[in-house]
Amino acid sequence: MSEAQDFKYIGRRVVRPDGVDKVTGRANFGADFALPGMLYGKVLRSPHAHARVKKIDVSAAAAMEGVYAIVTGADFPKVGSEEITGGEGAGDFADLATNVMARDKVVYHGHALAAVAAKSNAIVDAALSAIKVEYEVLKPVLDLDTAMADGAPLVNDKLFTAGLKEKPTRPSNVAAYMEFKRGDIDKGFAEAEVVVEGTFRTPTVHQGYIEPHACVATINQGGQATIWCCTQGHFDVRSMTCKVLNLNVADVRVIPSEIGGGFGGKTTIYLEPVAVMLSKKAGRPVKMTMTRDEVFRASGPASATKCTVKIGAKKDGTITSMHAWLAYEAGAYKGSSMAPGAMCIFAPYNVPNFLIQGYDVLVNKPKVAAYRAPGAPQSMYACESVLDDLARQLKMDPLDLRLKNAVSEGSVAAYGPKFNAIGFKQCLEAAKKHPNYKLKLGPNEGRGIAAGFWFNAGMQSSAEVHINENGTVTVVEGSPDIGGSRASMALMASEELGVPYENVRVLVADTESAGYNNVTGGSRVTFATGMAVIQASRDIIAQCKQRAAATWGIEADMVDWKDGQAIPKPGVNADVKPLTLAQIAANAGRTGGPLLGRASLNARGPGPGFSINMADVRVDPETGKVDVLRFTAIQDAGRAIHPSYVEGQMQGGAAQGLGWALNEEYVYDANGVLQNAGFLDYRMPVASDLPMIDTQIIEVPNPNHPYGVRGVGEVPIVAPLAAAANAVRDATGIRIHDLPLSPPRVLAALEARKG
Amino acid sequence: MSEAQDFKYIGRRVVRPDGVDKVTGRANFGADFALPGMLYGKVLRSPHAHARVKKIDVSAAAAMEGVYAIVTGADFPKVGSEEITGGEGAGDFADLATNVMARDKVVYHGHALAAVAAKSNAIVDAALSAIKVEYEVLKPVLDLDTAMADGAPLVNDKLFTAGLKEKPTRPSNVAAYMEFKRGDIDKGFAEAEVVVEGTFRTPTVHQGYIEPHACVATINQGGQATIWCCTQGHFDVRSMTCKVLNLNVADVRVIPSEIGGGFGGKTTIYLEPVAVMLSKKAGRPVKMTMTRDEVFRASGPASATKCTVKIGAKKDGTITSMHAWLAYEAGAYKGSSMAPGAMCIFAPYNVPNFLIQGYDVLVNKPKVAAYRAPGAPQSMYACESVLDDLARQLKMDPLDLRLKNAVSEGSVAAYGPKFNAIGFKQCLEAAKKHPNYKLKLGPNEGRGIAAGFWFNAGMQSSAEVHINENGTVTVVEGSPDIGGSRASMALMASEELGVPYENVRVLVADTESAGYNNVTGGSRVTFATGMAVIQASRDIIAQCKQRAAATWGIEADMVDWKDGQAIPKPGVNADVKPLTLAQIAANAGRTGGPLLGRASLNARGPGPGFSINMADVRVDPETGKVDVLRFTAIQDAGRAIHPSYVEGQMQGGAAQGLGWALNEEYVYDANGVLQNAGFLDYRMPVASDLPMIDTQIIEVPNPNHPYGVRGVGEVPIVAPLAAAANAVRDATGIRIHDLPLSPPRVLAALEARKG
Repeated sequence: MSEAQDFKYIGRRVVRPDGVDKVTGRANFGADFALPGMLYGKVLRSPHAHARVKKIDVSAAAAMEGVYAIVTGADFPKVGSEEITGGEGAGDFADLATNVMARDKVVYHGHALAAVAAKSNAIVDAALSAIKVEYEVLKPVLDLDTAMADGAPLVNDKLFTAGLKEKPTRPSNVAAYMEFKRGDIDKGFAEAEVVVEGTFRTPTVHQGYIEPHACVATINQGGQATIWCCTQGHFDVRSMTCKVLNLNVADVRVIPSEIGGGFGGKTTIYLEPVAVMLSKKAGRPVKMTMTRDEVFRASGPASATKCTVKIGAKKDGTITSMHAWLAYEAGAYKGSSMAPGAMCIFAPYNVPNFLIQGYDVLVNKPKVAAYRAPGAPQSMYACESVLDDLARQLKMDPLDLRLKNAVSEGSVAAYGPKFNAIGFKQCLEAAKKHPNYKLKLGPNEGRGIAAGFWFNAGMQSSAEVHINENGTVTVVEGSPDIGGSRASMALMASEELGVPYENVRVLVADTESAGYNNVTGGSRVTFATGMAVIQASRDIIAQCKQRAAATWGIEADMVDWKDGQAIPKPGVNADVKPLTLAQIAANAGRTGGPLLGRASLNARGPGPGFSINMADVRVDPETGKVDVLRFTAIQDAGRAIHPSYVEGQMQGGAAQGLGWALNEEYVYDANGVLQNAGFLDYRMPVASDLPMIDTQIIEVPNPNHPYGVRGVGEVPIVAPLAAAANAVRDATGIRIHDLPLSPPRVLAALEARKG
Repeated sequence: MSEAQDFKYIGRRVVRPDGVDKVTGRANFGADFALPGMLYGKVLRSPHAHARVKKIDVSAAAAMEGVYAIVTGADFPKVGSEEITGGEGAGDFADLATNVMARDKVVYHGHALAAVAAKSNAIVDAALSAIKVEYEVLKPVLDLDTAMADGAPLVNDKLFTAGLKEKPTRPSNVAAYMEFKRGDIDKGFAEAEVVVEGTFRTPTVHQGYIEPHACVATINQGGQATIWCCTQGHFDVRSMTCKVLNLNVADVRVIPSEIGGGFGGKTTIYLEPVAVMLSKKAGRPVKMTMTRDEVFRASGPASATKCTVKIGAKKDGTITSMHAWLAYEAGAYKGSSMAPGAMCIFAPYNVPNFLIQGYDVLVNKPKVAAYRAPGAPQSMYACESVLDDLARQLKMDPLDLRLKNAVSEGSVAAYGPKFNAIGFKQCLEAAKKHPNYKLKLGPNEGRGIAAGFWFNAGMQSSAEVHINENGTVTVVEGSPDIGGSRASMALMASEELGVPYENVRVLVADTESAGYNNVTGGSRVTFATGMAVIQASRDIIAQCKQRAAATWGIEADMVDWKDGQAIPKPGVNADVKPLTLAQIAANAGRTGGPLLGRASLNARGPGPGFSINMADVRVDPETGKVDVLRFTAIQDAGRAIHPSYVEGQMQGGAAQGLGWALNEEYVYDANGVLQNAGFLDYRMPVASDLPMIDTQIIEVPNPNHPYGVRGVGEVPIVAPLAAAANAVRDATGIRIHDLPLSPPRVLAALEARKG
């Protein structure tokens, strides 16, 4: 740990600035905005998983009273194939454009192929029913094995595998291949005394954010558009919408609402360009809101995967070789989260020989999107399950096995970079000492542990700090607040400026009011935008020193800033009283005008995050139902700016990970029609399904951030899958390789053993 | 004139950025905003000009279905008596608070004394009718002579005259006295060969902005309020509302709408605190919109005045002495525009001896507000009329008389400062050469000329410049755009950055998104906010040079910025290609993050503005009706950033000044009840009343602005009153001393001469 810092505001559990509005229902989310004369828009979606669109006849719908506009793919501009920049999981523009509105072909059940704007939702629904579409139904590809097999039907017959050493000669559903390697795995396995291998599958799951996608768009006759929407990145909504519609970013203003969850799923666009096109045709604002059914069918879930992991070790637990073969479903357009999954899988371990092979595979399902630590839960589920099996074979404590091989400062990560100060060993040691690790288990109960990792992101942020005339502070930034970043930004501004938290307000401003900011994702905001807020506050302090110096008639470099006041440096021969920020602000007009600070950066060195999770479960031998008795999340936060929010992230990630482990899955029929597009049939954990999640924050400061911050939002979802699966293995004695560990699957395994 | 500057964008008549939305009806003005669950609020107004409020019984109204909240003065906090800062014409907080909502006394016909919020405007109206008020009616004071007379009834019996040499011993309707003097006027008059004197009266007139006052306010349970409103200064709305309601400025966000005219009348608050209080009681957003009747009765018109001016001169036209006695109605609360009227009256002339005496006088009429060059049209009407009479007596061309005494660079203005480069003589010379000055007049026709002056303001402004990822530019500032400032700001950013005007967008941002800005008033915005935009653009250029230097591996001071590109300075030994702003922007992530510039200032040296107006009129001897045949406005703009907007200001000011001269006036009955609170009875000029206003822009650059800008918005209204009056004098041979020169008044004068 680095030397202790003495903080006045950092680390305090202050009141959330958005709390009152959220608990009283005043906060405005995506669907809460309205404009005079606004129409309602909705999308016609494909009933087929794979079909050619031969004809769309909108004439009957267009003739209906109250229908103002209908658009189909033919109304949208042709979009080239440049790579998009700056958007987490945004993919390709041509793909993005046809995912937003199909052209000649629909490639998943739920794919948009037309949209209507009308005076009311009832008229919209009637008009959608009146649109006649002729399809030529094609055979869909619905799983990785089929998709990767020779002679498989092709989702996209113009796609050739990228990343192969030899140029492919024919199209494939495999969109991309990549690998990381070190040493020689064959040699490593030859040196091993124990080798364990397993193949694991995870299903398609959804982020399950409470708030469906929603937006209001309006475009004027001059081509200037405004979009209100719920998003993790309004600058990305702007750039993506402009690419899809061939607009100038200067002509599009995107105003973010409050956001009712995103978890990576709100880093791309679905409705926004459609609403703009409808508004353009109708000459009125258009509001679009997805139903839950549409969210499941047509937004971006997480990749289903098939991962084979093989690990060899000496009898003392020293790992000699690791091999991962990872296949990720991309959905109908290329770009799964395979790459980050491959980056993370072996990152916690020092190993001389490894090979990680990753495949990005097209299937006739909705295009996947990012989901919290995208790709890592799936791959690390496989790795951490195999390590668990290895520990059993070695008769070693699973924490000790990990400690034996754990990376620390100076280790070179499997994905390339050398680690700076990291807290993995500290998490393992904390787990060993944790009282929950020592509790006795009863019959049919089991305990599983697993490690989690996420590399965390930096990226571009900017911030402005305005000092009001009474000395209060407004921070203007452009990172939508999903996990409490307004409170964190205010705390950091308070700490720098030396003013009470209560005096600081944080505004998440729109694309015109704020400087450019990358998406809220990659656990980057508290780190990167926070750093911008700190620097902008320092810009203010520098100006305040100048104002004080001018007031006192001394040089600015003879002024210090302490406890929210300008004071003369020791030895300054001037009889002056300290000037508070409020005093300097009140006098700003006479000393040079309003106080206005700014900073922008592309943040480097975000500081990777590690976790250890422990799950205790009881498996009902009669039904196969798994109850989580206890769950303990231990995680290195670098520095917890607002500990309650950090704990909230750890608890939320655990809840989502346990849902993924135990119950959640997309269920398709043989034709690729989704069978459970609603929360009654798609089984997310509710409060009664879970115990209180115990948390322990470890603080190994990130040396690249002034306060030591490292991202905390994504690590929490990585370890729960394996922790729960290892606990079920412990409780039942059976290793089940496929998720979810739902009652039917667990019961089948129990009965197979009996049988 | 200073040396010519070679501009690429400045001076171009580019398309207005708000044009499309305004002509197609999409632009949102104060009343165009709505929130879910919003209520409608309205004010109960006094039917008496002066009365004690004995009892307000709201019980019947409160019991009505659909009524959510009722407030009276008793609901508002007690407000102290500190001076407000930063608001043009904002006056005193205690006065402001009781003007917004009366406490124990109503002091003008239309004074607010209760307000209701209900589900619909119909319910509001019914509830207002159901409120029972017991009044003790007091004798009102309705004109300056009565108010200033000994023993007059007192509007405020706690008010003592400020500014007197001897402390007053009893209360008075005279709120303040001030004077400017130089030399010895008695000596000056003794030296004169001709002395002319006259007493002139001007009526109460209204700015007549098209858009009535309107706002929507909402406040949450945490005390955080948001106000949408049409205003000239949202930062002032914030500070004033906070003073009246005892709120923290950090808790109030004010979002300005488009504004349908203000002319000084939207520099203060009426509805905003009432809407917040209603919202607080109702727990819902509240919208309030004034009717035209309310605008006339209860917003702030311009002072009625009585001005006596005496001027002595030698036979060659050299002025030896000037004396002005100025009394301005303040309405029911102190603070008329007497002071700026006194500053302006003799400012255009070099005179060794002068005395200007000003009185600020309470009467039972609505508290006046600023109206375009506040105070100057009234005082200068008197001065320029007397000068006209003087020229007649001297048989001198009126332009030559003014040229003989005109101030120029180095002259000390009557109100104190020494003039820098100014364009008064250039305007006079242009008038002499103007073809309209040589046209022959017919029977019953006359020509009048007059000078106009306004000192112009600087004050605090700030601006941010954001560079989008495609190199387009967003300017963020906080000065509501009344007269085309968005176009001017964009032109200045274009000029500095060297990018096309079409690539620049300007956002007038709210109090949280923008840095602090003083009100849009005093003709300060193009000068002061423009300077902030220029400086923020230079901040961007400095950053671009650093980015280019880093890219090229040279020092930043070896980089020049030219034509929107970074180029190496001559002699730099590096084989590099120029980098455009778009290229630097596209690469910003790799060179340090988003490009974000900022500047703030308290602008000094705004550069006074002068004008000469010429009016040709025909007076109908049968009816007394005055038709304006031709009107020529000549004005020094320093530098016309967007000439069409400058001409628009000149034409608009002329139209308003001619209305003031010829027809507009508040008509009160003996009890102080306004008789003509509507556009049918309050006679503003319409298009058919006026000729095309001819304009000629003079450009004597202001040396205190990088491009030479001086304010242009207010000067245009100053000279038309006297120009028109002098033309009527020329046509009829009769000097009428009171405005307006409406048909009954002119006819009466014509008949009096006959009789």
